[in-house]
Amino acid sequence: MKEIQASKNPLIKELRKLHQKKHREEQGRYLLEGFHLVEEAARWGETLELILVTQRGLREWGSWLARQGEESLYQVSDEVMRSLSDLPTPQGIMAVVSKKTQIITDFSGRWLLLDRVQDPGNVGTMVRTADAAGFAGVALGTGCADPYSTKVLRSMQGSNFHLPLVNVQLEQLIPQLQQLSIPVYGTELNVDAKPFQEVKVTADVALLMGNEGQGVAKDLLNITDFNLYIPIYGKAESLNVGVAAGILMYHFAGSL
Amino acid sequence: MKEIQASKNPLIKELRKLHQKKHREEQGRYLLEGFHLVEEAARWGETLELILVTQRGLREWGSWLARQGEESLYQVSDEVMRSLSDLPTPQGIMAVVSKKTQIITDFSGRWLLLDRVQDPGNVGTMVRTADAAGFAGVALGTGCADPYSTKVLRSMQGSNFHLPLVNVQLEQLIPQLQQLSIPVYGTELNVDAKPFQEVKVTADVALLMGNEGQGVAKDLLNITDFNLYIPIYGKAESLNVGVAAGILMYHFAGSL
Repeated sequence: MKEIQASKNPLIKELRKLHQKKHREEQGRYLLEGFHLVEEAARWGETLELILVTQRGLREWGSWLARQGEESLYQVSDEVMRSLSDLPTPQGIMAVVSKKTQIITDFSGRWLLLDRVQDPGNVGTMVRTADAAGFAGVALGTGCADPYSTKVLRSMQGSNFHLPLVNVQLEQLIPQLQQLSIPVYGTELNVDAKPFQEVKVTADVALLMGNEGQGVAKDLLNITDFNLYIPIYGKAESLNVGVAAGILMYHFAGSL
Repeated sequence: MKEIQASKNPLIKELRKLHQKKHREEQGRYLLEGFHLVEEAARWGETLELILVTQRGLREWGSWLARQGEESLYQVSDEVMRSLSDLPTPQGIMAVVSKKTQIITDFSGRWLLLDRVQDPGNVGTMVRTADAAGFAGVALGTGCADPYSTKVLRSMQGSNFHLPLVNVQLEQLIPQLQQLSIPVYGTELNVDAKPFQEVKVTADVALLMGNEGQGVAKDLLNITDFNLYIPIYGKAESLNVGVAAGILMYHFAGSL
């Protein structure tokens, strides 16, 4: 096992850059923090290029670490860990995970489509809920929070290892799905849209959720099969987008 | 209109204490920030003891402010506003609102009961969703995030002005509801509980959601009519509590 004491070590400096999307794309990898997520990544067959652990972490997770490849393991100082973590109290374990290039050719089943969902917590919660609801995958359009940022990763709680996340051009994907006879439903805050409770549950479906403030882009709403609406029975103006996605995904969840 | 320039002004020092729950309870009032929330409070008949506004805010919301009581209006410096706000960029308007003592004797309709929900964003989102789903009110047990904290207030987006929020002892409220023949359903991550889709929708119902990590306390789960479960169809371990509450509330929402 190698050791790194100094946060100005060239490898550590390189890894710190992974907090920026540009560098995650250039290096093709991302940082994952905390034992639960690192263990989940390993369990689901992700490639852990490096595992960085503090002395305290080595004691705590020693038996699990002993089963990982010796050559990928680095013991680091608390200073190094703090310099890499964006948590106020780092847990003491972090992995560098290779980004998978996911090419999806089969869009059968239920898919969640996200149009410019910007809040990392919202993107993460929706991926986690999609997983719980048995959705086949999540397609992220341009302008969504990057699922490989540490905030989104924390909020997904490992669901990104359970189902595919793909970056797409929604204006191209939607017509493709429709050619495959997969219905695509947009969502809008408009009482002229169809109340979701009236929509038949089908084995294949694509559900399109939009930006926190602006909703789904008009251009996309215009090309869906039709658009859904969650009725507001009280005096609230709207629902949180993560909650709305949960209500709709569970409408389509389960067996027919 | 009075003016306050210095953040060490005795009134401002007193108001700053309202960031602590203890002082909100002692003073019987709380801080509310941002034009949208302040306007919503006034519209729904809340008592705005004071309105603090910066010079820029005066220009922006002048016509609305002119319709409020002159004697409650204070023009404050940017320094004073910054000292009171917990936002990185204060909006320039803040109100001091009297806490209402809400004594609820009628628990008919649909109620959301919260057991030790600690995250301010979760409490706020659930109140907002309860409002959207047409619930009659939200009962907060001991150990919940204080709904008068600025974070919860932001996240409720004004729904606290639309429906009553009451502090309760859940172990006392639950038997009272049951004596009134109102069914009380707990929620748990337990496949032995009843899948929510199988539960009949009734006009009166109390739905009990629990702490983020620990769920609903065992003592409470033992005294409910029965407990509900949201089936997990994928590989996620659980749902975010705010999302789970949304799925369940919308199951019970709307007309019979």
